[in-house]
Amino acid sequence: MKRSVIAAVAVVALVLGAVVGVVAARVGQGAATAGALADVAEARGLTGEEAEAALKTFVPPGEYDEYYIFSSGGHSGQVLVWGVPSMRLLKEIPVFTPDAWQGYGYGTDQGLQVLEAGSDPAKNATPVRWGDTHHPALSETEGDYDGRWLYINDRANGRIAMIDLQDFKTKQIVDIPNSSTSHGGVFVTPNTEYAHISSMTPMPWTEDGYADLKDYEDAYRGVSSWLAIDQETGRIDLERSFQIELPPYTQDLADAGKLTSYGWGFINSYNTEMAVGGDAEGGEPIETGAIANDYDFLHIINWKKAEEVVAEGNYVERNGMRVIPLDVAIEEGILYFAPEPRNPHGVDVSPTGDYIVVAGKLDPNATVYDFELIQRAIENEDFQGTDPYGVPILNFDSVVAGQVELGVGPLHTQFDDEGHAYTSLFVDSAIAEWTLGPKAGVPEGEAFKLVDKIPVHYNIGHLVTAEGDTVAPDGRYMVALNKWSIDRYPLVGTLKPQNFQLIDLESDPLRILAEVPVPNAEPHYVQMIKADKLVHRIEVYEPGTDPLTMTTSEFATLSPDDARVERHGNVVDVYMTAMRSHFTPDIVRVREGDTVNLHITNIETTPDATHGFAIPQYNVEASLDPGEVVNITFEATKTGSFAFYCSEFCSALHLEMRGWLLVEPK
Amino acid sequence: MKRSVIAAVAVVALVLGAVVGVVAARVGQGAATAGALADVAEARGLTGEEAEAALKTFVPPGEYDEYYIFSSGGHSGQVLVWGVPSMRLLKEIPVFTPDAWQGYGYGTDQGLQVLEAGSDPAKNATPVRWGDTHHPALSETEGDYDGRWLYINDRANGRIAMIDLQDFKTKQIVDIPNSSTSHGGVFVTPNTEYAHISSMTPMPWTEDGYADLKDYEDAYRGVSSWLAIDQETGRIDLERSFQIELPPYTQDLADAGKLTSYGWGFINSYNTEMAVGGDAEGGEPIETGAIANDYDFLHIINWKKAEEVVAEGNYVERNGMRVIPLDVAIEEGILYFAPEPRNPHGVDVSPTGDYIVVAGKLDPNATVYDFELIQRAIENEDFQGTDPYGVPILNFDSVVAGQVELGVGPLHTQFDDEGHAYTSLFVDSAIAEWTLGPKAGVPEGEAFKLVDKIPVHYNIGHLVTAEGDTVAPDGRYMVALNKWSIDRYPLVGTLKPQNFQLIDLESDPLRILAEVPVPNAEPHYVQMIKADKLVHRIEVYEPGTDPLTMTTSEFATLSPDDARVERHGNVVDVYMTAMRSHFTPDIVRVREGDTVNLHITNIETTPDATHGFAIPQYNVEASLDPGEVVNITFEATKTGSFAFYCSEFCSALHLEMRGWLLVEPK
Repeated sequence: MKRSVIAAVAVVALVLGAVVGVVAARVGQGAATAGALADVAEARGLTGEEAEAALKTFVPPGEYDEYYIFSSGGHSGQVLVWGVPSMRLLKEIPVFTPDAWQGYGYGTDQGLQVLEAGSDPAKNATPVRWGDTHHPALSETEGDYDGRWLYINDRANGRIAMIDLQDFKTKQIVDIPNSSTSHGGVFVTPNTEYAHISSMTPMPWTEDGYADLKDYEDAYRGVSSWLAIDQETGRIDLERSFQIELPPYTQDLADAGKLTSYGWGFINSYNTEMAVGGDAEGGEPIETGAIANDYDFLHIINWKKAEEVVAEGNYVERNGMRVIPLDVAIEEGILYFAPEPRNPHGVDVSPTGDYIVVAGKLDPNATVYDFELIQRAIENEDFQGTDPYGVPILNFDSVVAGQVELGVGPLHTQFDDEGHAYTSLFVDSAIAEWTLGPKAGVPEGEAFKLVDKIPVHYNIGHLVTAEGDTVAPDGRYMVALNKWSIDRYPLVGTLKPQNFQLIDLESDPLRILAEVPVPNAEPHYVQMIKADKLVHRIEVYEPGTDPLTMTTSEFATLSPDDARVERHGNVVDVYMTAMRSHFTPDIVRVREGDTVNLHITNIETTPDATHGFAIPQYNVEASLDPGEVVNITFEATKTGSFAFYCSEFCSALHLEMRGWLLVEPK
Repeated sequence: MKRSVIAAVAVVALVLGAVVGVVAARVGQGAATAGALADVAEARGLTGEEAEAALKTFVPPGEYDEYYIFSSGGHSGQVLVWGVPSMRLLKEIPVFTPDAWQGYGYGTDQGLQVLEAGSDPAKNATPVRWGDTHHPALSETEGDYDGRWLYINDRANGRIAMIDLQDFKTKQIVDIPNSSTSHGGVFVTPNTEYAHISSMTPMPWTEDGYADLKDYEDAYRGVSSWLAIDQETGRIDLERSFQIELPPYTQDLADAGKLTSYGWGFINSYNTEMAVGGDAEGGEPIETGAIANDYDFLHIINWKKAEEVVAEGNYVERNGMRVIPLDVAIEEGILYFAPEPRNPHGVDVSPTGDYIVVAGKLDPNATVYDFELIQRAIENEDFQGTDPYGVPILNFDSVVAGQVELGVGPLHTQFDDEGHAYTSLFVDSAIAEWTLGPKAGVPEGEAFKLVDKIPVHYNIGHLVTAEGDTVAPDGRYMVALNKWSIDRYPLVGTLKPQNFQLIDLESDPLRILAEVPVPNAEPHYVQMIKADKLVHRIEVYEPGTDPLTMTTSEFATLSPDDARVERHGNVVDVYMTAMRSHFTPDIVRVREGDTVNLHITNIETTPDATHGFAIPQYNVEASLDPGEVVNITFEATKTGSFAFYCSEFCSALHLEMRGWLLVEPK
């Protein structure tokens, strides 16, 4: 935390000077005096601190925020994009769940393709049309965000999606084989070689996916998946990917090694007790069964080594994936365990890659592992034994650099640029600021000490600092992601929003500047990126672009003169253009039972000239950005006259931008 | 507009006084001096006006907004709730479109029941699972918002929904018979006797819903629907409702008469040319075909008379609705027309009910009709003829009190408490402030004059003032709902957000205070209600409540001791409880092919202690607020072990709040 340049109370002489200076400086540009500001603050009942916070977070009309937050949406299945410091919600990106506003999953082939490909019928009982997004991972180059792609998992169904940061659209969903769920085990390796995702609850690795819970230890397995990324498109290539079999613990949060620890990955686990519940069958619920052991296991994975082992062919195939069996992982030195205090939650690697911080939610300490010590212990085979599956367990005392007592319920940790760590405390409803060790530039005597603690409201889960999980944190702004809001907002129904609180990292002590409710989602992990890093954004597509491929669509219709209807038997292909304020053709005549393929090109080239395309009674709603082509396929099962229309207000004659789908009875 | 009490530039003596005063007043409560505020503003590059705006809009952490905005979400199908003046998005209420976060349409019987009932298979080609919400109508008592219910239409599919403002949940969707689409024709009558909704594009009133466009004038019809409201539950009762047949024009915006004009309703129309398009068939697009006439028709409806006529049995039945045929409506004096300048958009009744303001988007004037003059013209049969269907057309000059030239593209009008009207100008990208006439308390010489004009960014559609469409506008705050944002926000993809701008109604001249992007929807009409009017809100349900009925559910399970599994043949009923941090039972054993009925009660009584319930691979996601019961029904088609879990972070051991659905192979 930097010392604030603003003294809490200025002496009168300074006040007078400042007032006069401001009056002089502002004349001619909508001047208001310092006194006028104080009057407004007083009229609205703001304290001085509140008035300062207002001025520190206000982004004037027409100006931009300094940072973006990419936030998981939890069981909304979507991603939210926020501006910092204004804390305005800028965009909801549909990912796992259909979204009518953006026409995602409501009739357009492109959206449906992404959703269909992301729901493997071999795995799911029914097409899955929602997700539980938990852990976003922005693509990185040399351990720093590079603004190309965003990966995010579906905790509910063990899937991962890729969002293209050119146009902020979801381009791919992959249903991970051999994996039923995935909580926080998502990260990218420092050059986005892989997106990693680990399973959460293990699943039976049996033929039919079934095994009774009495066979849990033998038949159930977890998995660590290393999904290879195509460096041109950002897409996941399952053929180049691999998995590592894990014991049936509950694998939880994860993070990539970086710089010093490049080539390694780290995953927390809990329920190493392998409790399965049974509270109505004479057993105890998992919440008590899973907290018996004093220690669970930090999984330490050498993914560079795993890559070699796979290249050598030392794997088995399982449901189309190359899987390194657990015994091979042990034998080849790919997997080690280190004890971690019971039921840990967060594992976060420090900016230099030297420290791995684990926060155990039932332990008051942050436990700091030192990567050099881990390497030494592995070399020296400094083990305290193995787990029931034969995985070597490193000696706790040999690998831990320090423990810092923070408070009750520590969960997640982020970093600044001056050797500080910030850890959320769920039960305390607070954030602890503390110092890392010498390898983070902290002098020996000041290392591993609690510095400050700030209350938040309430029950904080994750937190984020600006670029705080990269090799180069910015040391600006922190956001507390509070799970409960209780009394912080007016009642908007029995379901209360969560609460994001913006904290000024440059004030001493730490201070809350503003808060904002989360209106439509339950965010978990988020990342905060400098706005100017998103250099790949485009504003308008090349005319005739299919956003799914980012190439010219074979169905592009670039002029109303080329608009046409082609009938082949009972298949009708309509090549349509959209521009202010008409569709061409604006009458589509088909017969009951026809298959209708609409190919619509928005031939606008003006930014923001988006058109919608909706058909009443047919559940069709598309959104076409300038230059975009969408394809819509449906069966004309219902006879009648259906007044299709532009659903995105586009012009003074927007309401006249409509036409007729006529479905004539057979 | 009130004169601002804050002078733009204060004299030095006042500044000094204010500074000293503030320092004195704030000591001990996080004091910051006026000078310190100016320093912060300067450090962030804020002009004086911007700094004032920051202070006028900031709602400090933990404090509440003064007003709510209930906003349509357009083709998202949802409703958005915003706080004013902070402009924070407080809540998204799912209405016509499933929402995974709130478990609406993802497995819970209650959500599916609302959606299913709202999609009539006789009308729709396929179950409709989205909507295009346009025009919210808060329930009223004596013409003022009463905070009980919110009605909102689906422009795409001709439907209406009721949201209960006890718990902010959608309780009913009604698919309106004889109506395919509905744009802005929604209002409630002053005591919420009826929710009115009119059709937009007409549809064939034929057996099979089909008629070629050459038969447009004969076979197609519009309709005005008067949906009776149950005063206990807020639900629409189709049996007590009625419709009025209308010519096949495009009926558009609508508003209720109030006070002076109580008992009447007003609907705009356009495309009285009855153009049908055909731009690829040698015709002209609707955008040119529909603007040929100099005048369209304001529909003037006597709903009190219509009620009597229906009570007398003078109606026909059509698809289960009582319909007053057009000739009966004419004969009984239920329907009159008044000419309105071409292609009008907004029709808005002034607070006293005396003036009906129409803004024609292709005419620079606001046209003000006087209800007394309308009544006189009707009495005197002061007609300029009839339309092709025999509806009498009142003489334009006999019913218009005045016209005010406002600018290019006037659309919608709202009001304040001092006789002013505010009209959005789409093409000008501005809002015009102007005076009403003597019946609104404006002196004769000042009546019907343009007062002020403020640029907005960009292409404003609707606008709203605080309670500005009621009998008692508050005269505080105005929000411009701009359709295009263009350069106002950083790029968040090729689809740009819309732009809400908050305007200070108490400043002179009008001034923009803040703006916020709309991240997930395309709002149209909105209403702004004083926060303290929402007196019916509840924070926690009575234990065991089914929110759909607001009564105790027959499936309520109020203690883990009562949790049980009952099997009847291949039907399995599971009575489950949820509380921090376990489900009881936490193991559910079924066989492949079973029908599974889960009845889950959240037995928490603590506000905000919401639990989720999700089943991997089964597309099931429910949200249970404290006290709530949800029912979930599915077929166990897929064998395996599925780790169901609480999807809403609830406690330190939230991650342990899970269990197993075991589907054993046959």
